[in-house]
This record gives sequence, C-alpha cells and structure tokens, in this order.
Amino acid sequence: MQIAVLLYDRFTTLDAVGPYELLGRLPGAETVFVAKEPGPVRNDQGSLALVADRALADVPHPDLVLVPGGPGARTAAGDPEIQDWLRTVDATSTWTTSVCTGSLVLGGAGLLAGRRATTHWLTYDQLRAYGAEPTGERVVFDDKYVTAAGVSSGIDMALHLIGRIAGDTAAQTIQLLIEYDPQPPYDAGSPEKAPAEVVAYWRGVPVEELESRKG
Amino acid sequence: MQIAVLLYDRFTTLDAVGPYELLGRLPGAETVFVAKEPGPVRNDQGSLALVADRALADVPHPDLVLVPGGPGARTAAGDPEIQDWLRTVDATSTWTTSVCTGSLVLGGAGLLAGRRATTHWLTYDQLRAYGAEPTGERVVFDDKYVTAAGVSSGIDMALHLIGRIAGDTAAQTIQLLIEYDPQPPYDAGSPEKAPAEVVAYWRGVPVEELESRKG
Repeated sequence: MQIAVLLYDRFTTLDAVGPYELLGRLPGAETVFVAKEPGPVRNDQGSLALVADRALADVPHPDLVLVPGGPGARTAAGDPEIQDWLRTVDATSTWTTSVCTGSLVLGGAGLLAGRRATTHWLTYDQLRAYGAEPTGERVVFDDKYVTAAGVSSGIDMALHLIGRIAGDTAAQTIQLLIEYDPQPPYDAGSPEKAPAEVVAYWRGVPVEELESRKG
Repeated sequence: MQIAVLLYDRFTTLDAVGPYELLGRLPGAETVFVAKEPGPVRNDQGSLALVADRALADVPHPDLVLVPGGPGARTAAGDPEIQDWLRTVDATSTWTTSVCTGSLVLGGAGLLAGRRATTHWLTYDQLRAYGAEPTGERVVFDDKYVTAAGVSSGIDMALHLIGRIAGDTAAQTIQLLIEYDPQPPYDAGSPEKAPAEVVAYWRGVPVEELESRKG
C-alpha cells in the first residue's frame, strides 16, 4: 500500500504530519511526500520546511492520497499541475483524503462536486463554491472521499481510516503507541465551544487576514 | 520570544510538530528548528525529513527549548554535542520541555535528576535511570521543566504552556484555530484504556523491537 502526502508552499504542517504519523505505521505501508519538485517545501509559519522526496510525476498511483490545508491551499486549488495530478491519482486511488482547507484543493480538481465534505470551520462557503455540501462533522466519509475539519482533526481521520483499512485492533494499537488520549486543558476546539468573543473576532476579520494567520 | 525545536536522526515527527503547530502561533514568537548541522534530518519512519535551518551553536539562548522523542532518543542522550548544547540553553531558558522519550535526552544531560517528569508509557524505567521520578500524568510541570507523555501528548502540553505564557484567551484562540476538539473513534490511548491483549503484546516485546517501531 502506497500513501502519498502532497506538499505545496504554505501548507499547514500538522494537517500533513498528524495523519501521517498514524497512517505511516500501517503494516506494509510505504509513505511518500510529493510536491511539484522534489526538495524542501516551506510551511505557512515560514519557520519549517518538510522535504518532498518525490515529484508528482513519480507517484502516479498511490492507494491513498492525503492533501493538507493551509494558507497556500487556494493557490494550489488553481495550480494546473497539482490539479492534473490529483485527477490522475484519484482515478485509481482507494482513498482520496484531505485535512482542513485541503478539501478546497480537492474541490479545485472537481473531485468533491455533489459530495458531503468538510473543511476548516471558517471556510465552509469556499468549499460550497466547489459544489460540495459542507457538514458539521469532524470527519466526513462520502464513498472513497474522506475529509477532515481543521488542522488537528486529521488525527481522528487517520484512526477512522486505519480501522477501515486494517481493522479495529490495528487502530487501537496505533492509538496506544502514540498515546492519543487527549486531555486538553481548555474546551475551546470548535466554534460551538470556544468563548463567543473569540469566535466573533475571527468571524469578523477579513478573509485575507485569516488566511495569513490560521493555516 | 525564541522557541528552539531540536531535531536528531530518527526523531518522531508528531512529537516535534504537534506542539510546534501551537507554540509557533504565539504572538511574537520566533521558532527555529536546530540540529547538529543545518539541513534535512530524517525521522524514525524514514519516509520524511524536516529541515533544521540552524546549527546548535547558532541558537545558544532560546526562551523555550523543545526536545522530541523517538527511536534515536537514546543515541541523542549519549551525544556530547547535543548534551552540551542542552546544558547551555537550559542555563538561560525560561522553559525546558520534552515530548515522549525526549525526556530521556534531557535526562542524559542531567536536567531531570530529582524531578517529577514523564515519557512514553513503555519507557518509565529508562527515565527513572536518569534520576527522575516518572508520573502517570499526561503533562508534568516541575518548575520550568515540562515533560509530556507519548507522541500526541505534546499538543496538550503546548496548550498548557500557552496558557501560562500568554493567558487563557490566547490558548483558547489557538485551540479554536486548529479545531482541537478531539473525537477519536476508539478509546485506546493509554495502557489503562487499551485492550489488555494489545498492552500485553507491547509490554512483552523486546525493547529493541519497540524502539524500532514505536518512536
């Protein structure tokens, strides 16, 4: 089983690394990080680069493709080379997946039209513009298309996927090995739970400001 | 405020990236990834390299140092250059932190002797060998020394730290922006919660096998 993780300029690191940390531990899985060109790809914060070992053209038939989000997602959603690659790999993939605004990149390739999907809570309208039907769920399965909400939700998505691919015991084993027993000291992880003034602030900020800050 | 994230061969990616994703969003923070030499550093799974932008010697006085764990932690714990750097930065740091077996690297530098601390659930004995007192807590504060349990626990540690550094609202804002509202489909994230046969299997496996598989 081959897993391909797409990187592009200004991706959000945890979107990619969260699910990778789990999926990469699937027995027998080979994971490859891919980008338009092999080499370092700089993230949204600017302080970290991940190395893409392979070019897009070198990985035409992954079994699972994972697209992270980030401030660079809208550029990636309009990049013909990335979009052509996504349509190519989707033609033979078993699972086509995204985290956060990675679903906008899939949307740009026309892969989510008419499908239930999700994205970061601040970008439902952008997802809808691609013909998808945003839901409030943290992880959305629609046939082989699996989309997760903001950033950290990719970890939950990976557990769901591992359960379906390798069974409950494999998923529970990986959850134990990474001690994923969340104990956040605050309960502010969704717009329904966060302090109202914090949600209002972010909903009121111009989109450009959001894009540059949130990932 | 400067945050330094240490990389070394065969580190576990999420140990570093989980807390980085949150801490890097602290207003005014500059984050630098450091290693013995600048350049790509390969992780435990072998399928991903993160780029260290700076050498250890270039970052002598970070306010916060973060040490990830991984199968390479014991080698790092015995590496004089890494150990000298840790003792140097610890002399002026405000926070000295680790995730998973990163605490063994701090232990190797003698920084946890007589302190309460934690590590991955399979490595309490190794932590104890450095004179630390392992606890069952997910995040342990002992003065400025903050240690987190296995892999994913670094995200919770970062929220605790952000609350102390910048206040509750800053922590809640970052939690909301990364939608950290965990909904794992299984409840197997600790040895107390995972299926007994899974825990028994891992407790019974030789340490070398564990080190090569768990991170």
